Amino acid sequence: MAAERADAARNRRAILRATEELLAEHGLEYVSMERVAAAAGVGKGTVFHRFTNRAGLMTALIEERMRAHNEAFTAGPPPLGPGAPPRERLTAFFDAVIAVATKNVALMAAFENSAKHRHDNDLYVSWHKHVSGLIAEARPDLDAEVIAHVLLGSLRSELVAHLLKSGESARLADALRSMVDSLLGQLRRT
Amino acid sequence: MAAERADAARNRRAILRATEELLAEHGLEYVSMERVAAAAGVGKGTVFHRFTNRAGLMTALIEERMRAHNEAFTAGPPPLGPGAPPRERLTAFFDAVIAVATKNVALMAAFENSAKHRHDNDLYVSWHKHVSGLIAEARPDLDAEVIAHVLLGSLRSELVAHLLKSGESARLADALRSMVDSLLGQLRRT
Repeated sequence: MAAERADAARNRRAILRATEELLAEHGLEYVSMERVAAAAGVGKGTVFHRFTNRAGLMTALIEERMRAHNEAFTAGPPPLGPGAPPRERLTAFFDAVIAVATKNVALMAAFENSAKHRHDNDLYVSWHKHVSGLIAEARPDLDAEVIAHVLLGSLRSELVAHLLKSGESARLADALRSMVDSLLGQLRRT
Repeated sequence: MAAERADAARNRRAILRATEELLAEHGLEYVSMERVAAAAGVGKGTVFHRFTNRAGLMTALIEERMRAHNEAFTAGPPPLGPGAPPRERLTAFFDAVIAVATKNVALMAAFENSAKHRHDNDLYVSWHKHVSGLIAEARPDLDAEVIAHVLLGSLRSELVAHLLKSGESARLADALRSMVDSLLGQLRRT
């Protein structure tokens, strides 16, 4: 059983690495279950069994990429993790996600195209819960849930890619910082 | 010549009305240049000549739908048009666009799917110019261009549809109002 689990984990890693390489070298159109299986040295059935379809592959890949980041904002040291004021934690969160999104524009775009309903996606839901929780903590008078959707909408690969193209991706982090500051920096209604 | 222009205008109207009806009755997948031509009672060549492809049809349709709205915010009476303070004009703008977007979710979704690069699209560019201009007028210290992209990102059909599904579309207008208030309501640096 232990050996089987180790095999399964090794296959999973090989499949995700192969997906990543095919995506980086040839783009999304080129990535198919068959090509991933061949590149990973596993049977096609294994890839289908574990990931269902290309959308499943993209979701698994971006979730793996974001897992370290998610641990940092839920349980890591401040200002990203618990212990800092909501305003600082929010800014640290957006800085960190923008850094990952900027380095992985192609993967983020592929993920968005695969997962049509981002509002039902686990990764998005975890981000939304984090952001809306921090807004609600600092400003219980605001509609934290909808405002979190608006702020998180800025992380779409479309805007990130648009700013990257003109060499201006740092502007997104700065703009979100000023939006968070103006939203959370006001006097609270008590 | 006048008769030809009148014919062309009549064909254009017939084609857009046919597109609208096919879209409303059968959804985007069903809309093709051939079916639009047949429903409008014009030759297929006329549809291709005037609109190039399905994306062109969607863009023309949403632009027509939004034209009255664009006139209202550029040249109409305040608070939407010139004369009111930037903060009130912005809130009026978002209220008005959300009202149109809420009534036309299917069309907005079709438009977004057709026009992959919203940042190059005329309608989006006109909205962005308007919103960033008003932000810059009230808060010259902010990055109005990027903040305008973030706020306008909230008008994507995905979020509008998500809120509509749970009967909560009014929350989007309220959330944007509180974001605009907190951004523009602070003391200006002079």
